[in-house]
Amino acid sequence: MPKSGGDRDIESKRHTLAHLLAAAVLEKFPKAKLGMGPAVEDGFYYDFDLKESITPQDLPKLEKRMRQLIRDGLETKGEKISSAKAKTLFKDQPYKLELIKDFSKDKKQLTVYKTGEVFKDLCRGGHTKKTSEINPEAFRLTRLAGAYWKGDEKNKQLQRVYGVAFETKKELEGYLEAQEEAKRRDHRRLGQELDLFTFSDMVGAGLPLFTPKGTVIRNELQKALLEISSKYDMLPTTIPHIAKRVLYETSGHADKFGDELIDVKSHYDEFVMKPVNCPHHTQIYASRPRSYRDLPLRYMESTMQYRDEKPGEISGLTRVRAITVDDGHIFCRVDQIEEEAKNIAKIIEEFYKGVGLWGDHWVSLSVRDPKNKKGYIGSDQDWDKAEKMLAKISKDLKLDTKRIEGEAAIYGPKLDYMFKDSLGREFQLATIQIDFAMPGRFKLTYTDEKGKEVTPVIIHRAILGSYERFMAILIEHFAGAFPTWLSPVQVRVLAVSEKFQGYAKEIAKSLKEANIRTELTEADETLGKRIRESETSKVPYTIIVGEKEKKNKEISVRERGKGDIGSKKFSTFLKSLRTEIDKRQ
Amino acid sequence: MPKSGGDRDIESKRHTLAHLLAAAVLEKFPKAKLGMGPAVEDGFYYDFDLKESITPQDLPKLEKRMRQLIRDGLETKGEKISSAKAKTLFKDQPYKLELIKDFSKDKKQLTVYKTGEVFKDLCRGGHTKKTSEINPEAFRLTRLAGAYWKGDEKNKQLQRVYGVAFETKKELEGYLEAQEEAKRRDHRRLGQELDLFTFSDMVGAGLPLFTPKGTVIRNELQKALLEISSKYDMLPTTIPHIAKRVLYETSGHADKFGDELIDVKSHYDEFVMKPVNCPHHTQIYASRPRSYRDLPLRYMESTMQYRDEKPGEISGLTRVRAITVDDGHIFCRVDQIEEEAKNIAKIIEEFYKGVGLWGDHWVSLSVRDPKNKKGYIGSDQDWDKAEKMLAKISKDLKLDTKRIEGEAAIYGPKLDYMFKDSLGREFQLATIQIDFAMPGRFKLTYTDEKGKEVTPVIIHRAILGSYERFMAILIEHFAGAFPTWLSPVQVRVLAVSEKFQGYAKEIAKSLKEANIRTELTEADETLGKRIRESETSKVPYTIIVGEKEKKNKEISVRERGKGDIGSKKFSTFLKSLRTEIDKRQ
Repeated sequence: MPKSGGDRDIESKRHTLAHLLAAAVLEKFPKAKLGMGPAVEDGFYYDFDLKESITPQDLPKLEKRMRQLIRDGLETKGEKISSAKAKTLFKDQPYKLELIKDFSKDKKQLTVYKTGEVFKDLCRGGHTKKTSEINPEAFRLTRLAGAYWKGDEKNKQLQRVYGVAFETKKELEGYLEAQEEAKRRDHRRLGQELDLFTFSDMVGAGLPLFTPKGTVIRNELQKALLEISSKYDMLPTTIPHIAKRVLYETSGHADKFGDELIDVKSHYDEFVMKPVNCPHHTQIYASRPRSYRDLPLRYMESTMQYRDEKPGEISGLTRVRAITVDDGHIFCRVDQIEEEAKNIAKIIEEFYKGVGLWGDHWVSLSVRDPKNKKGYIGSDQDWDKAEKMLAKISKDLKLDTKRIEGEAAIYGPKLDYMFKDSLGREFQLATIQIDFAMPGRFKLTYTDEKGKEVTPVIIHRAILGSYERFMAILIEHFAGAFPTWLSPVQVRVLAVSEKFQGYAKEIAKSLKEANIRTELTEADETLGKRIRESETSKVPYTIIVGEKEKKNKEISVRERGKGDIGSKKFSTFLKSLRTEIDKRQ
Repeated sequence: MPKSGGDRDIESKRHTLAHLLAAAVLEKFPKAKLGMGPAVEDGFYYDFDLKESITPQDLPKLEKRMRQLIRDGLETKGEKISSAKAKTLFKDQPYKLELIKDFSKDKKQLTVYKTGEVFKDLCRGGHTKKTSEINPEAFRLTRLAGAYWKGDEKNKQLQRVYGVAFETKKELEGYLEAQEEAKRRDHRRLGQELDLFTFSDMVGAGLPLFTPKGTVIRNELQKALLEISSKYDMLPTTIPHIAKRVLYETSGHADKFGDELIDVKSHYDEFVMKPVNCPHHTQIYASRPRSYRDLPLRYMESTMQYRDEKPGEISGLTRVRAITVDDGHIFCRVDQIEEEAKNIAKIIEEFYKGVGLWGDHWVSLSVRDPKNKKGYIGSDQDWDKAEKMLAKISKDLKLDTKRIEGEAAIYGPKLDYMFKDSLGREFQLATIQIDFAMPGRFKLTYTDEKGKEVTPVIIHRAILGSYERFMAILIEHFAGAFPTWLSPVQVRVLAVSEKFQGYAKEIAKSLKEANIRTELTEADETLGKRIRESETSKVPYTIIVGEKEKKNKEISVRERGKGDIGSKKFSTFLKSLRTEIDKRQ
């Protein structure tokens, strides 16, 4: 997505376009009552209260009128006005009157902005001087939506018209194309098409059911995490999905999540669905006495946690109620933080190389705001030590790091990894967080060399974050064409005709025995149709066998995106496929 | 455990012993009020209400007195009596008076049994004619417990004295020894000692936390199930742990479980914790149209389900609230039942050979009670077909099968596998169940060859049942000495002294790189102590290296239970270890 926020010029244009939109709507619907109309990322919107519904068919007409107003070269003029004058000026506009009242109560200076003679608005300003500064071919009204006045569900719902706007027509086209591409790649659509996951009204919103194919992707991701992490002695644990409320009162999460915690009504105990996993892991640590020589203890687990998301905020796999977190907690001494955090950074690097997101990323070294150290837990000395360690790791591993003040967790500094997908969208995914607070809350200790009881540190780490969100990102990043190691079906085998189905079956059997995820199709459709079908289902390799292949004991191979890559000995193909999968290429 | 129930003779002796126990208690505590005192499996008990506490120190004294009464050769005499006479006879025994009232209300004949002149009881009879028929050396008072009058928590708690009794002293000793052995093997004790799992008051009762070592066992079991099942194209799925209540209203589980269902208090939907997994799986089946050619669809999943067990009934891993089920559901056509069920039977055989329980088992072909076909769902024709198929499979696979009438599920016949552990205790574990009912409840269909919508069949299958219960059984079966493939630590490496720690480290590294779960100990204790420690922790192999081993580039190996098995080349050891693990020997 082309970046365009933050630029003052384009923001003025967008804001002015919002006013022109309102002017056009008022011309068409003189009784329309105006809500608010700001510039936003990539464009602008305006909210209207009117009896008639603005329809998609109205948008080109409104655009046309806005283009005329741009060409008219209207001047924008702003002036301070008194509350009394404002009330007269906007006497027919009840929402504006409400704003005037709000502003007066807050003793704010009121300003009014006029666009030529066609429109006036109660507005803080930030417009082009003349409408003709705007490129009339570089904006588009894109969609309609309902929006509550002041964003409050208790208020009336207004009609919102969204527009996008850029400096040039080319930029606009690029943006619209990227939007179209994003729609094509939408994981909700592809998830259904490729049979990866589903939702059921009887199970409930935000609770995805992963089909066998979707589960392959989850399990391959988990296997990769386990394999890479085991090199650094991270050990899987297993915890339940509920706990007594007191666990989260102790950890502080009951306060933090408040109403988002989901009560579980046992007849005997006061349980809640776990919203996070660290408190459970502290209880494994606490299950026996620990000595300085036992540390570090490194627990990892892919487990579902639950949040009571609002139905309106639930969306596909990006916002769910059952969130499978790839969670990990390292209980260690302060002098072990550096090595442990560095090892996590190495795990992150290896994993993201495997999923193809390594390279176009940066890392935020999130530290305290030095001007406001209140509200953070832990001693200055520990904070400085931890920050220096994280900075050193970034340097040693040559991470593209920015030090961001005020972004630390309350319990310690962290490294947050920001990755970009193939559409240029940025996601915060992996994280390494130093925690000086929680071990104390749970009174965790270890015995040091001198026999003294000391509080350990916890390093929280996530590599991929939530499996659901990560899968949504991967599906859209690859547009469903996953690397072979992640593909639910890795090879499809087709016989040219029924006559060679036996040979096709043999090949499929050999592949299956070699642990290659294989599908054999029946020769009941034309070969061309079956090849096309194999391609739309995004299978990495399609093997085709007929007379020639059977005779020469070979196979013909088509590679996804490349087409026919020729005939090969089966063993040669299998060997290179094995390497590709095992190396996660 | 020697079996002894069901034998009339021994039951009479146990019942008589209960009366002698009461007689002895009354002599010692004349104010004791008598509850009930029946024969039970392996022995007998009697309940008493008295101010003083009966202590473990009292038991040998009571036993001594009972032995005397046995030798006295007292005769037992029973007679019918009227309610009025009974009330006079037991005027000092309020619990007996309550029973007399109950019996009179039910118009039951009252009988009184006298043991010589020392004791009389309101009793249905079933005694030895003379106390001297009892072997005075073949019984033992074993323990004290609290027990509510009539088993009702609302009633007063009485003091219960338990005894065990057999025909011969040898049988008694065998029984007590087996009890001791069971105590030594108790999975709760070994689970703590071997650091396999733990419980936390803050997490809650019945919610085990599996440590890294316990998780190894769970994961190895799951890996074995996946590997074996994948040969038969069972495919893993992933479902959440909650669902809307309507899902279980539709499946019928809401009725079945009633109060045991655990409500989940979302602010937006009425959820419950899932008590079973089949309804979720039906929703994956229902997510797209299915044709006869798509079937069978075989879903499998190891996932936690939740039951609201009473705190008093929760015990170790055998009765938990978070139950990880190895669940599987095959959606198929009627004509596919035989092959599918046979494949599951093959999976069961391979799996149980791997865990060492195959051999000493039998299979129940659980069918309808032919005299009472009401309450079962499905047509006679389908039932007959399914039963014949299961019988044929049993025969084809030479399973030791008994046809048990009246044990079918309401929705279809099943094969239940009964396995014995090393203490001779029998457990129902694997199951194959044909279900004609649930697919219809969820309106599942597939399109048959003629384009007609037909209801599929579901085969429910579990191989190990619940991971928690299965682990409890395995821990006790193996007394913690798991086969190598299941052992949390497979090899421990010890250096004779600090000087050879470098070589030990090299060996440990090579093992780890070969995916062998390895522990390297520091050479900070005497070698003897470290060897003993390795043995009590039940590690299958201990490698010891010193001067000689380093020089010859060899290793010395100790095998669990066998001791020193000599020096070997590392590669020879590794190769045979690899085979042992991969073949699950």
